[in-house]
Amino acid sequence: MTEPTIRPSETTLRGLLDGPWAHVRQKSRDQLRGDLFAPVAGLGVAEHRERVMEQLRTIAGTEMAGYGFSSAHGGSDDVGASVVAFEMLVCDLSLMVKVGVQWGLFGGAIQALGTEEHHAWYLPRVISLGLPGCFAMTETGHGSDVQGLRTTARYDPDTQEFVVDTPDDDARKDYIGNAARDGVLAVVFAQLITGGTNHGVHALLVPIRDADGHPMPGVRIEDCGPKAGLNGVDNGRLWFDHVRVPRTALLNRYGDVAPDGSYSSPIESRNRRFFTMLGTLVRGRISVAGGAGTATKAALTIAIRYADTRRQFESPSGEEVRLLDYRAHQRRLLPALARSYALHFAQEELVRTLHDGSRGDPLSEEDQRRLEARAAGIKAVATWHATHTIQTCREACGGAGYLANNRLPQLKADTDVFTTFEGDNTVLLQLVSRGLLTRYRDSFGDLDPKGMARFVAGQFIDTVIERTAARPLIERLVDATRRRGESDIRERGWHLDLLEDREQHIVEGLARRLRRAGSGDAAFEAFNDAQDHVLKAGRAHVDRIVLEAFVAAIDRCEDPDTRAVLDKLCDLYALSIVEEDRGWFLEHGRLTASRAKAVTEAVNTLCAELRPHAAVLVDAFALPDEWLAAPIALGAEETRQEERRTGGASR
Amino acid sequence: MTEPTIRPSETTLRGLLDGPWAHVRQKSRDQLRGDLFAPVAGLGVAEHRERVMEQLRTIAGTEMAGYGFSSAHGGSDDVGASVVAFEMLVCDLSLMVKVGVQWGLFGGAIQALGTEEHHAWYLPRVISLGLPGCFAMTETGHGSDVQGLRTTARYDPDTQEFVVDTPDDDARKDYIGNAARDGVLAVVFAQLITGGTNHGVHALLVPIRDADGHPMPGVRIEDCGPKAGLNGVDNGRLWFDHVRVPRTALLNRYGDVAPDGSYSSPIESRNRRFFTMLGTLVRGRISVAGGAGTATKAALTIAIRYADTRRQFESPSGEEVRLLDYRAHQRRLLPALARSYALHFAQEELVRTLHDGSRGDPLSEEDQRRLEARAAGIKAVATWHATHTIQTCREACGGAGYLANNRLPQLKADTDVFTTFEGDNTVLLQLVSRGLLTRYRDSFGDLDPKGMARFVAGQFIDTVIERTAARPLIERLVDATRRRGESDIRERGWHLDLLEDREQHIVEGLARRLRRAGSGDAAFEAFNDAQDHVLKAGRAHVDRIVLEAFVAAIDRCEDPDTRAVLDKLCDLYALSIVEEDRGWFLEHGRLTASRAKAVTEAVNTLCAELRPHAAVLVDAFALPDEWLAAPIALGAEETRQEERRTGGASR
Repeated sequence: MTEPTIRPSETTLRGLLDGPWAHVRQKSRDQLRGDLFAPVAGLGVAEHRERVMEQLRTIAGTEMAGYGFSSAHGGSDDVGASVVAFEMLVCDLSLMVKVGVQWGLFGGAIQALGTEEHHAWYLPRVISLGLPGCFAMTETGHGSDVQGLRTTARYDPDTQEFVVDTPDDDARKDYIGNAARDGVLAVVFAQLITGGTNHGVHALLVPIRDADGHPMPGVRIEDCGPKAGLNGVDNGRLWFDHVRVPRTALLNRYGDVAPDGSYSSPIESRNRRFFTMLGTLVRGRISVAGGAGTATKAALTIAIRYADTRRQFESPSGEEVRLLDYRAHQRRLLPALARSYALHFAQEELVRTLHDGSRGDPLSEEDQRRLEARAAGIKAVATWHATHTIQTCREACGGAGYLANNRLPQLKADTDVFTTFEGDNTVLLQLVSRGLLTRYRDSFGDLDPKGMARFVAGQFIDTVIERTAARPLIERLVDATRRRGESDIRERGWHLDLLEDREQHIVEGLARRLRRAGSGDAAFEAFNDAQDHVLKAGRAHVDRIVLEAFVAAIDRCEDPDTRAVLDKLCDLYALSIVEEDRGWFLEHGRLTASRAKAVTEAVNTLCAELRPHAAVLVDAFALPDEWLAAPIALGAEETRQEERRTGGASR
Repeated sequence: MTEPTIRPSETTLRGLLDGPWAHVRQKSRDQLRGDLFAPVAGLGVAEHRERVMEQLRTIAGTEMAGYGFSSAHGGSDDVGASVVAFEMLVCDLSLMVKVGVQWGLFGGAIQALGTEEHHAWYLPRVISLGLPGCFAMTETGHGSDVQGLRTTARYDPDTQEFVVDTPDDDARKDYIGNAARDGVLAVVFAQLITGGTNHGVHALLVPIRDADGHPMPGVRIEDCGPKAGLNGVDNGRLWFDHVRVPRTALLNRYGDVAPDGSYSSPIESRNRRFFTMLGTLVRGRISVAGGAGTATKAALTIAIRYADTRRQFESPSGEEVRLLDYRAHQRRLLPALARSYALHFAQEELVRTLHDGSRGDPLSEEDQRRLEARAAGIKAVATWHATHTIQTCREACGGAGYLANNRLPQLKADTDVFTTFEGDNTVLLQLVSRGLLTRYRDSFGDLDPKGMARFVAGQFIDTVIERTAARPLIERLVDATRRRGESDIRERGWHLDLLEDREQHIVEGLARRLRRAGSGDAAFEAFNDAQDHVLKAGRAHVDRIVLEAFVAAIDRCEDPDTRAVLDKLCDLYALSIVEEDRGWFLEHGRLTASRAKAVTEAVNTLCAELRPHAAVLVDAFALPDEWLAAPIALGAEETRQEERRTGGASR
C-alpha cells in the first residue's frame, strides 16, 4: 500500500515552496525569534496590545517595514517581499494584522492614492512608525458596500479646508485597526463634496490624536472591546464632528480639488474612478490570503506531527495504532494538506503578478481587473480553507488541541475574521463570477444588486476561459487526454479537463440565465435567484486556476522522487474536489456512477500512499519550532511514550 | 414566492419545542436572570472561574441541583429535568459545563456506580455543593480508549485500603473539570488490582484537597491553563503517588472487594461489566448534545434577527436590501435552522427514553444499548452541527459577529470542544455503526481496532433497521409513497423512504464487506479500509432517526398554519440532506439527474417560502434577551437605521 522506495527531498520541497522570495522568508525565520516574538497564551487585552506594539517597533527598525515602499522614500520597491514578509508573521497573527494595518493598508493607501508631496513627507514616517496610522474605510452601516459610505468631506473654499463629518452612528468608522490605542493619523474614506456636488468616495488624511495621545478636537474614539481573536490589535470606532483638515490632506492621485473648489480627475467616469481607487488596494486581499495560508500550514504541521506520533487503541498485534494510520484521520488531514500546497502555488502566482505590475510597465487595465478577480477568489477560498482546516486540526488533536498552549485555539480564533474582512468572501466570489461573465470591457460597475441588475440588463454578458501563466503546459496535458478519449483516474489531463469543463458549463449556464432577465427589479430578482449559481461559478473558477498553479509548480521540480510525491498530492487535491462535487459531475453526465465511486476509492488510496510522506510535507513548510510553539508538535508526545516504555516516571 | 397568508403561532411552536419539561425550561428562564447570570465578555481566567463558582453556589440552593438525584437523598428523581435544565444554561457555557461536572458526571457517577452507603453520605453533600468534585476518567495517554487507562488501585488487605498510583505522565488524569481550583473529592477511574489480578477499570472516591484547599498528601495538581473557551471551568491534571483510600471508597455497584481482597461482581464478563459501567454514564452525552443544541439556537437567533434587519447594497428600487432577502444568506442560515429543529425533537426523544428508563422498569439490555447508540450518534451530529452553524452565524454577521459583546465568539469557542469531549465524535459514529451491524446479542466489546477486528472475525454481522417511536406513522407514509410508485418532491413518505433506503443499503454493504474479512491483522486492515464506510453508516442512521423524530413532532402539532410552516421546515431538513449527499443518491441510482436538480431547486424555493417565518421560528426558541445579550440581536440595528432615517444624530 505504501511505497517506501520513494524518498522526497525536504530541501527540494522547501526550495519550491519558498519560491522567488526565499531570502525574505529566511530573514523572517532568522529575525523573528527570541522572547519578544515567542507566542504567548492567555494574555489580557491590554498586555497583548502592548506586546504587539513593542514587536511592531522592533520590526520598524528592520528592512521589512520598507519592503513595499518606493526606494526614493526609504523603501526597497519590493512589493512581493512585503506580501511574503507579512504572511510569515505567524508567531502572532495580531502582529501580522497590525503590520498589515500600518504598512499595508495605511501606508499603502498613502502610496497608492497620494501624490509626491504626500509620499515625501509621510512615507518615511510611516516606515519608521513615527506615525502610526489607521485605514478608516468601513462604517457600521456600510462594510461590503463601500460606495454607500456616508462620512462626508465638504470643501470650504473660504478656508481652503475640508470639513469631515460623521452624520450619525450608521456612518461611524468601525472595526478600525490601530484606532483604539496607537493611531495618530487616519486615511479616512468619505464622500467628497465640493460646490454642492458629490464626487464619490475619496480618501483624506485626518489626524486623530495629538502628541499626548488624546483625541484631536472633534474626533471621538471608542474601543471595539474584546474580540474572538486578534486581541493584540486595537480596533476602534471613530466619529468626526466638523473636523477641519487642509486641502492638501486629500490623497489626490485620482481626484483633486483646486483652491477654488473645482474638482478634477484623470478618470472621467465616477464609477471607473472608484474601482480604480479600490483596485490599488488589491495587495491587502492578497496579503490576507497569504496570511491565512501560513496559519493553515502551522495548524497542519501541529496536527500532522501529533497524529504521526499519538497512539490510541490497540491493534490485534497488541501495539497501539498511530492516529495517522487510521483512514478516517488521513481523510481529515491529507486532502487539506494537498489543498494547502495547491493554494500556496496559486498565491505565489498572485504575488508575482502583483509584484511585476509594480515594477516596469504597469498592468494593462484588463490584467489589473484579472488580478483583482483572482485576488478576490483566492482570498475567499484560502480563508475558508483556513477556517475549515484549522477547525479540523483542532478536533484531530482532541483535548490537547483545545489547550491554548498548543496554539490551535489562537490560530483558529485569529484567522476566523479573515473570511469576512478585506472583503466578505460571499461578496468576493460574486466579484469573481462577474469577471467571468465579461471580457472586462465596459464592465466597471458596482457589485451591489442594483449594479448587478444594471449589468444583467446591459447584456454585456459573454464568457471566456481566461488563461493562466501555465496555459501551454495545461493545454498540452488536456489535449493529450482528449485525443486518447479515455483516461486513467490519476491522469492529470483528465483532472484539468474536468475542472475546466465544469467551470465553462457553469459560467455559460449562468450567462444564459442572466441574459433572459429583464431590467430593474426583474433583473434584481433574476440575479438574486441565481445567486447560488453565481457563487458556484466563482468557486469553480478558483478551483481550476489553483489546480493549474499546482501543475505549473510541479513542472518546475526536477527531483524525480519529490516530484512523484507532489504528483500524488496534486492528484489528491484534484480528486478531492471532484469527489466533493461529484453530485454536479454526475448530474451533468461528466462522471458515470462507477467512475464516481472510483474517484472515492482513489482518494482513499492516495491518502494511504501519502501517509508515509506526511511529516516531510509539513516539515517543508519550514515554520520554525519557535513559531509553532505547541508542545504536542515538538516532541512532548514522543517523550511521554518513551518514558512509559522505559518505566521512567516523571514525578 | 412568499405566502403571507400562513400565520404560524409562536405560542404553539414554543409549546411544541418546550415539550414535556416546559416547566423546567420556564424555571430556568425565570431564575437565571440579573447581574449574576448575565453574559460578560472579556473576563480574565481567574475572574471568570470565580464568577462561575458563584453562579454554581446560587444554583446549588435551588431545585435544579437535585433534579437528577433520588428523592431519598434530597433529589427529585427527575432525570429528564436534570438534562433539560443543563441544556438551558446558555447564559454562560462555562457554567453549563461546571454544572455538568458537579451534578452530572461527579454526582451521577456516585449515584450510578455507588451503593446505598455512598448515596446516603455523599449525595446530599454533592447536591448542596458542600463537596465539589471531579470526574477523573481521561488520562493524557488514553482518552477515547477508556479500557486502556493506566492509573492503578491496588488493594492492600493488611490495611484494608486501596493504594492509588499514577505510574507516569501518560497516566496522569488530564482535562479534569473542577480539578484546578475547586474540587475536593474525585471519582477516579483506575485498573482495580487485588491479589495480583487486574479486574479492569473501576471507580473510587479519592479526596484531592484538604479543608484549606491544599492538595492532599500524595496528590499533585496542575492547572491545564487557558483554553480556547470554557475558561470559567478549572480544568486540571492529577497525579497520585501511593494515595491510600479505605476499601469503602470503591464505588462497588458492579464490582466489590471483600476485606480479604477477594473480588466479586454481579456481572461475570469483564467486558460486559465495563460497558455496563460506562453505559450508566450515557446521560453525559445526551446532556452535551442538548447543550450544543441550545448554543446553536442562540447563535441562529442572533444571526437571523440581525439578517432580518441588517441591510446592505441598494436594490434597483433604491432601497437597501435586507441580508435575509438574499438567496445566499437564506441558504446559509435556513437549512441550519431546519436541522436545529429536527435535532431538537430527536433530543427530546432521547431524554424521554432516558428518563422513562430511570423510573419504573429499567430498560432492557437491548433498549439500553440502543439508547447508548442513539445518544452517541445524536451527540456527534448535534455537536458538529453546532460547530458548523455557529461558525456560519459568525460569518453571516461579519465584523459585528467577531466582537465579543455580540456573543457569537464565546458560543463558538465554548462549544468547540463538544465535538471531542464526552466521546470523540469520530469514535462515537463508529459505535453507532457497530450497533447497526448486530441485533445487540453477544455484541459487547471494545470499540478499538482489536475489538472491532474480533467483532468482524466473529461474523456476528447482521443488519436491521431498528424502530423509532413513530414507526407506525412512518411506515404509513412510506407505504403510501411506495404504493403510488411516484412522488412529489415534497412528499414526506419519499423523504423517509430515501433516508431509510440509504441507511439500509450502506449498512448492508458494510456488513458484506466486513464479512469477507479474515481475522487478526487482516480483520484490522479490513476494518480500517472500511472506516469511511463505517462513519457514513453511522451518519446515515442518525439522519434518518432525526427525520423520523421531526415527523413525529409535527404530528403532535394541531394548529394548521403552524403545522404548514413546520412541514416546510421538515421538507427543508430532509431535502438539504438529500442535496448534500446527492452524489451518493445519484451513484446508487436513487435519484435521476433531473430529480437531483429538482431537489436543489426545491431547497431554494423552500428557503424563500420560509424566509418570512424565520424570525418567529427563532423567537419560538424563547431564549430570553438577557441570555442572548447581543446588541445586534436586540434592536441595535433597528435603532441605528431609524436614527439614520429620521436624521437623529447620536453624538
